[in-house]
Amino acid sequence: MMLLGRGLDARDNQTRQMQDAVSNVEKHFGELCQIFAGYVRKTARLRDKADLLVNEIYAYAATETPNLKVGLKNFADEFSRLQDYRQAEVQLEAKVVEPLKSYGTIVKLKRDDLKATLTAKNREAKQLSQLEKTRQRNPSDLHIIAENELQRATLDATRTTRHLEETIDNFEKQKIRDIKNIFSEFITIEMLFHGKALEIYTAAYQNIQNIDENEDLEVFRSSLYPPDYQSRLDIVRANSKSPLQRTGSLKSPLKTAQVRKKIHTKSL
Amino acid sequence: MMLLGRGLDARDNQTRQMQDAVSNVEKHFGELCQIFAGYVRKTARLRDKADLLVNEIYAYAATETPNLKVGLKNFADEFSRLQDYRQAEVQLEAKVVEPLKSYGTIVKLKRDDLKATLTAKNREAKQLSQLEKTRQRNPSDLHIIAENELQRATLDATRTTRHLEETIDNFEKQKIRDIKNIFSEFITIEMLFHGKALEIYTAAYQNIQNIDENEDLEVFRSSLYPPDYQSRLDIVRANSKSPLQRTGSLKSPLKTAQVRKKIHTKSL
Repeated sequence: MMLLGRGLDARDNQTRQMQDAVSNVEKHFGELCQIFAGYVRKTARLRDKADLLVNEIYAYAATETPNLKVGLKNFADEFSRLQDYRQAEVQLEAKVVEPLKSYGTIVKLKRDDLKATLTAKNREAKQLSQLEKTRQRNPSDLHIIAENELQRATLDATRTTRHLEETIDNFEKQKIRDIKNIFSEFITIEMLFHGKALEIYTAAYQNIQNIDENEDLEVFRSSLYPPDYQSRLDIVRANSKSPLQRTGSLKSPLKTAQVRKKIHTKSL
Repeated sequence: MMLLGRGLDARDNQTRQMQDAVSNVEKHFGELCQIFAGYVRKTARLRDKADLLVNEIYAYAATETPNLKVGLKNFADEFSRLQDYRQAEVQLEAKVVEPLKSYGTIVKLKRDDLKATLTAKNREAKQLSQLEKTRQRNPSDLHIIAENELQRATLDATRTTRHLEETIDNFEKQKIRDIKNIFSEFITIEMLFHGKALEIYTAAYQNIQNIDENEDLEVFRSSLYPPDYQSRLDIVRANSKSPLQRTGSLKSPLKTAQVRKKIHTKSL
């Protein structure tokens, strides 16, 4: 009979450990859930800023010389495409935050199992103390009845404990699998984004590098100095006997002629 | 003389265009500067969340079975390393935000140049109208004096205009170069981060995959069912004539024996 008493102690200890395990998961999965949710929110804020940047680059590009216009527009197109992939990071919500959140319900169910086991164990303990009392009074019939009742209570407690052992074992098994899945999903989703980012930025880099500075500069100059004004200015300069007219102008006559030709071609 | 008059009109137009170009840069570089600064801030917020995540994963890992502990700790190490690279994105501040901000000063200087040119042009226009009046009154000596003064004013205006043309030309040239540099720096810094992210997540993925579920499950079980309790429970079960004792337990005796051996080896 001492064996049964010590068995109860050990099982109490076991139940406490299970309770601790469940509480620990409740605490840390809750924390992880909140922080991952925050991470997703901050990612969304970053995307919002990136969207603003896209719109502003479009707005600025529209006011610029042809090469800068096209280069910036192409960059904004690519950068916008990248934000679509950042948008796809809301998958983190479904694949990371939700599974963690679901542990709220799972933990509640395990607590119910733990409670049922505790109830059965209390019944067993009550029967045991009943038996001790009966044995002290020592009428052998009652002793046997009480011993039978204790055995029934022990069986019941053992059955519930078995169920608890199984359910906690499954809980632990599932928990490790879920943690592995959740973190693997997180990494996969992040990697997909970073991979796309590398690919897109590579294209975007070319868009920026391809901006032809000199061609745009000629367009800018030709918009400032229309050909007829230019020729009139030359007459004025020729009339004035100043050395100014011979100092090198910032634009060579050749370049000006080229630009003029371009404009004429366009207006035809 | 009609030529000079029409030249003034054209140059007015030219100055207006220059003013527009400068104002446009002031507006859009200002907007871009603000949005990029916001982008850097949001990146910092995301990093803060990631740092919280690192700490929470360490805290959770410390409470877990050996394989999960090591796997999560290694993941947190890698994820933390990635945040160091995100930290390096503050380079965006120096390489993107600051150059855009510096255009506040550049634009101010160009405005000064534009103002100087306008002053010289106004003086020229005043001399021109002076000449018109003198010509109407028609005393030839005064006419010549006024014409000389006009010529001097025209030269002065031409000189300032030349300086303006040069300074605006440089401004435009520098602007295109800066835009190309700023966006190239942005892309380079981002690519460095995304590349590192891919590299780090690849290692982190292995850390998670390597978590041995079964080994951890055995450790968990052996912590719940210490060997001496297990043997006592077997005696109790043997005493009870219930079919329960023969239903398959969730852990096979072999596994229990293995775990027991492990524990004994450790305690030696």
